[in-house]
Amino acid sequence: GRRIVVVGGVAGGMSAAARLRRLCEHASITVIERSGHVSYANCGLPYYVGSVIEDREDLVLQTPERLQARFRLDVRVNAEVVSIDRERREVRVRSVETGEASVLPYDTLILSPGAVPIRPSIPGADRMRVLRTVEDAERLASEVTTRPRSAIVVGAGFVGLETAENLAHHGIPVTVVEARSQVLPVLDPELAIAIEETLERHGVRVITGAGVAEVHAWGVTLDDGQEVEGDLVVAAVGVRPDVRLARAAGLELGPHGGILVDETSRTSDPAIYAVGDAVEKVDAISGSLELVTLAHVANRQGRRVADHICGRAVEARPSIGTAIVRIFDTVAASTGLSEQRLRALGRAYQVVRAHPMSHASYYPGAQPMSLKVMFDPSDGRILGAQAVGGEGVDKRIDVLATAIAAGLPVDELANLELAYAPPFSSAKDPVNMVGYIAENIRSGTCDVVEPEEVESLVRDGWTLLDVRTAEEHRHGAIPGSVSVPVDELREHLESLGDGPFVVYCAVGLRGHVATTALLEHGFKARNLNGGHRSWAAWKAAERMALAG
Amino acid sequence: GRRIVVVGGVAGGMSAAARLRRLCEHASITVIERSGHVSYANCGLPYYVGSVIEDREDLVLQTPERLQARFRLDVRVNAEVVSIDRERREVRVRSVETGEASVLPYDTLILSPGAVPIRPSIPGADRMRVLRTVEDAERLASEVTTRPRSAIVVGAGFVGLETAENLAHHGIPVTVVEARSQVLPVLDPELAIAIEETLERHGVRVITGAGVAEVHAWGVTLDDGQEVEGDLVVAAVGVRPDVRLARAAGLELGPHGGILVDETSRTSDPAIYAVGDAVEKVDAISGSLELVTLAHVANRQGRRVADHICGRAVEARPSIGTAIVRIFDTVAASTGLSEQRLRALGRAYQVVRAHPMSHASYYPGAQPMSLKVMFDPSDGRILGAQAVGGEGVDKRIDVLATAIAAGLPVDELANLELAYAPPFSSAKDPVNMVGYIAENIRSGTCDVVEPEEVESLVRDGWTLLDVRTAEEHRHGAIPGSVSVPVDELREHLESLGDGPFVVYCAVGLRGHVATTALLEHGFKARNLNGGHRSWAAWKAAERMALAG
Ligand SMILES: Cc1cc2nc3c(=O)[nH]c(=O)nc-3n(C[C@H](O)[C@H](O)[C@H](O)COP(=O)(O)OP(=O)(O)OC[C@H]3O[C@@H](n4cnc5c(N)ncnc54)[C@H](O)[C@@H]3O)c2cc1C
Ligand SMILES: Cc1cc2nc3c(=O)[nH]c(=O)nc-3n(C[C@H](O)[C@H](O)[C@H](O)COP(=O)(O)OP(=O)(O)OC[C@H]3O[C@@H](n4cnc5c(N)ncnc54)[C@H](O)[C@@H]3O)c2cc1C
Ligand SMILES: CC(C)(COP(=O)(O)OP(=O)(O)OC[C@H]1O[C@@H](n2cnc3c(N)ncnc32)[C@H](O)[C@@H]1OP(=O)(O)O)[C@@H](O)C(=O)NCCC(=O)NCCS
Ligand SMILES: CC(C)(COP(=O)(O)OP(=O)(O)OC[C@H]1O[C@@H](n2cnc3c(N)ncnc32)[C@H](O)[C@@H]1OP(=O)(O)O)[C@@H](O)C(=O)NCCC(=O)NCCS
Repeated sequence: GRRIVVVGGVAGGMSAAARLRRLCEHASITVIERSGHVSYANCGLPYYVGSVIEDREDLVLQTPERLQARFRLDVRVNAEVVSIDRERREVRVRSVETGEASVLPYDTLILSPGAVPIRPSIPGADRMRVLRTVEDAERLASEVTTRPRSAIVVGAGFVGLETAENLAHHGIPVTVVEARSQVLPVLDPELAIAIEETLERHGVRVITGAGVAEVHAWGVTLDDGQEVEGDLVVAAVGVRPDVRLARAAGLELGPHGGILVDETSRTSDPAIYAVGDAVEKVDAISGSLELVTLAHVANRQGRRVADHICGRAVEARPSIGTAIVRIFDTVAASTGLSEQRLRALGRAYQVVRAHPMSHASYYPGAQPMSLKVMFDPSDGRILGAQAVGGEGVDKRIDVLATAIAAGLPVDELANLELAYAPPFSSAKDPVNMVGYIAENIRSGTCDVVEPEEVESLVRDGWTLLDVRTAEEHRHGAIPGSVSVPVDELREHLESLGDGPFVVYCAVGLRGHVATTALLEHGFKARNLNGGHRSWAAWKAAERMALAG
Repeated sequence: GRRIVVVGGVAGGMSAAARLRRLCEHASITVIERSGHVSYANCGLPYYVGSVIEDREDLVLQTPERLQARFRLDVRVNAEVVSIDRERREVRVRSVETGEASVLPYDTLILSPGAVPIRPSIPGADRMRVLRTVEDAERLASEVTTRPRSAIVVGAGFVGLETAENLAHHGIPVTVVEARSQVLPVLDPELAIAIEETLERHGVRVITGAGVAEVHAWGVTLDDGQEVEGDLVVAAVGVRPDVRLARAAGLELGPHGGILVDETSRTSDPAIYAVGDAVEKVDAISGSLELVTLAHVANRQGRRVADHICGRAVEARPSIGTAIVRIFDTVAASTGLSEQRLRALGRAYQVVRAHPMSHASYYPGAQPMSLKVMFDPSDGRILGAQAVGGEGVDKRIDVLATAIAAGLPVDELANLELAYAPPFSSAKDPVNMVGYIAENIRSGTCDVVEPEEVESLVRDGWTLLDVRTAEEHRHGAIPGSVSVPVDELREHLESLGDGPFVVYCAVGLRGHVATTALLEHGFKARNLNGGHRSWAAWKAAERMALAG
């Protein structure tokens, strides 16, 4: 049979190997894994550190023995592929334990070596822990049991924040240090701010806008001179595709330093495929190559490469990078591109902002969420979506991810028939509401103003109308706004002045009602997108960015 | 301005009125409502009876006064439209309280009168309570406080079961009586059985396959002679479109007795529109007219009819009837057509069955769910989906509903990039898994056997292979099956016989692995769809049907 060698025995590699066996009983399939485990749940590692997952066995979904029994895979752990000889089609394997070397011939080679946690090149960097393998997690977990006085997590991406939360679960005071001006850079700042607030509400200190300059035994020095104490320092500043083997073998790399593959996952060498975190993927929205380091993408690519190797037609599916994280009681998720990314790409977009409840407000336990959806103003194509809240954030992002994949224009969200009963949604689901709002924007029924435009419009002479109740107005309003509750609007039409008006309420709904009324009465008016809540979040994020 | 009259001030009617006002400030809009309330949450009524929603005010989203202030709607409650004079374009309105009659002219009339709870025509039927309006709920709630010794709910659809649960919340012994052989007839029986088990686990007695023949002060007599005690009897045997006005006015009705409308919601009289529970809708899958009595559909139609009346282009969107219910700790949901419906329609379909966990099994709290998806074998079009479980059932059904609306073929579910982190999903989301399984069926990689086919295949000489562990086999296996654990399969290839084989495991996954291995070794083999779990559920449902 054909000799297939797989480098890396986790998400991409082991999915490929298992599927290969299902499709082909007669190939010889060997999986080489450097660490001591295969088929482990990288995504569970932070929770093992936090003792949320108590049993280490739970992290390891399969063992070499069981994979041999079930799939007749020859799985070798503690074994590293140190080089590829493309001419002779063989890889050199070195035992991590004994240093022993051997040579393994292949007809087809699959690389799924994943990514390497980035360690900042600063003095003391070797004191930092990283979290990528089961061994890393065990080490961190055992250090946690010795009760460090305090901990520092450098980097506020998904892994950094999950790690911070899990360290906090042990009662350890944690500081998160992030060089950028916000946590979770995948989200736009006015949504990410809610995660920052969650962290602080749970006693995790967050420092943004400052990088780590040096790591000491007692903590870190930041590049602004601040000193932060912490005898345990974790680096979670992102990962770099692990291309050591590929580069040494002369395989082509992409613009971001990942392995370059075609739509069948083939590298520049037709006998060598690569999948997972190590390769560059086509981004569905921008069309350009990107690094997308997600487990579901790696699993899918692993399965697809097996299909292709077994002679099946596979079509490329560009990536939309759907991702989610729960930090304490708050959930943040995104799919497609953020507004920041769209702006950087110079792409035309329009935003929908809403703050719906997770389910019918009359049924107990409904939680607010913030939803933001970007679409292409010309054709309504959905470009990206983000949500922060609690219950039901995952659901709305998954529906939006499905809509993006299916190419549904944003207006069509209005027509989706989503499951409604009081514990699950509202008769107009948040996703429907996004469709309604978008439809109003696209049709010109209700034009909107972005939070950051308010000030300059007011400067240009627009009147800022707060259509919430007088009491809400007293409790905090946008500076310079006039209070005219929506329910009294029509009585004051004479005394409002000529406009034009920027109208706002708490979340955008009453503002929409008032704006459409003003338009119908012949005024020029626009509604503040997402209302006071989006404005306040934007303002807080702006303050944060200035402070950072 | 144009005079618009709306009959019925709840989901369809009030959504139409509010949107009309937003689009047109100059129309005169009058809403006539027979009950004492408008804008009430029908869907919350059972929970008010169960004191889950404690405050009656929470059920009523708007009042005539507030609707006047916000939308300048002339809303009249306790007022009934008793007839339509189409010639003169006026409706006759009668005060429910005083009997006073008046006449209201219209340019455009919108009917959203909803549906009427069906009362069986049996002796004592007037003793039965129904649940449709706030008044109904108040009456039932007040009767509950007088502590009936026990209660009977007739009908095990969504409303019946929600009502049963909520009566049980008060510690009242409840019996549900359903004439059909299963609860929740929207679901196929092998999924509905889980809801029946939930009810019984929570102390609600369920009698299926028996109708109520007579209602007495002490309880009911069933048509099989059984007597069931209960001094409170609730009828929840479905609703009938309320077409009294429409029929009297000579408007055309559809095949199911609902008002017939075109895709702009126009009735056979161009000045009269109708929306909501009272009208027939085009079913997206069958293309035929159906009654779909769902709040989200009524809301959407209300909004759309306003758009059309204000001169906007609206396109019809056929209905897929997405519905969900939570009964105690179990959630059941469906979208599109059930297998039963497809069979009745004589439609070709293929089934995917899976029993995935709601989120990564290594992360605490994952709950099992049963997923069933029907697709068209010729083009892969998704025809329907059902799910029963706990956490995450709503999410998967919403994703599937979106896929159906978007016309995604079932294989494409494999490629959806859904949000994955351990608390929310698995790297292969249940919906992705459905895509994989479907792809294997469609490509011939792994043909499946339905639970009901097993017996006859065995009779035809197929060998039934249980590939679970020997211990699982001992704990309950399909009669006549041979135990050959998947991990030992290859060692027994010589001794298995020639086949053909029906392979099964617990849920279908290991069966798939074994089946593909057998196929690769040249045997003929098919995998039991959904494994032992689906088979056992089907068996239990069959027993139930025979008993009923
Ligand atoms: C802490 C953490 C949390 C995460 N959480 C999520 C999440 O919630 N959701 C999500 O979608 N993604 C998450 N991810 C990302 C996800 O784990 C990765 O995208 C995925 O594992 C990538 O799969 P892969 O096969 O490319 O690489 P990996 O899973 O990293 O596997 C690569 C393997 O190859 C081995 N290897 C490398 N080079 C060699 C060599 N030369 N010889 C032999 N073996 C070699 C490595 O030891 C490694 O075990 C998380 C990652 C981490 C680290
Ligand atoms: C207990 C219960 C629970 C439900 N749960 C759900 C759920 O969880 N999810 C879901 O999607 N759907 C649910 N529904 C269905 C949903 O409530 C209906 O689909 C929706 O309300 C239909 O809207 P409509 O405007 O057509 O009718 P309705 O909301 O019923 O409104 C019709 C109104 O018209 C009035 N009326 C009728 N005739 C006249 C007349 N001649 N003159 C004046 N007024 C008149 C009636 O008094 C009534 O108030 C539930 C229904 C009930 C009863
Ligand atoms: C454990 C591991 C080896 C399993 O790989 P796998 O067998 O491909 O994946 P699964 O166990 O999820 O099974 C999926 C297969 O079962 C099939 N299947 C699942 N449920 C089924 C059912 N009810 N009926 C029939 N088939 C079913 C699927 O179709 C799929 O088979 P296919 O690829 O041939 O179509 C691999 O997933 C792994 O190593 N995972 C851990 C690493 C990881 O993913 N880490 C990152 C995330 S934390
Ligand atoms: C209360 C009721 C009158 C409100 O009707 P409504 O104003 O059309 O609906 P909502 O309050 O949900 O508001 C939706 C509107 O606000 C807009 N909106 C919502 N959030 C917004 C935001 N953040 N920014 C801008 N606009 C927003 C929507 O676009 C929509 O306006 P449009 O139709 O002009 O596009 C009506 O829904 C009702 O009577 N409901 C109770 C009855 C019922 O539905 N029962 C069955 C279910 S239990």
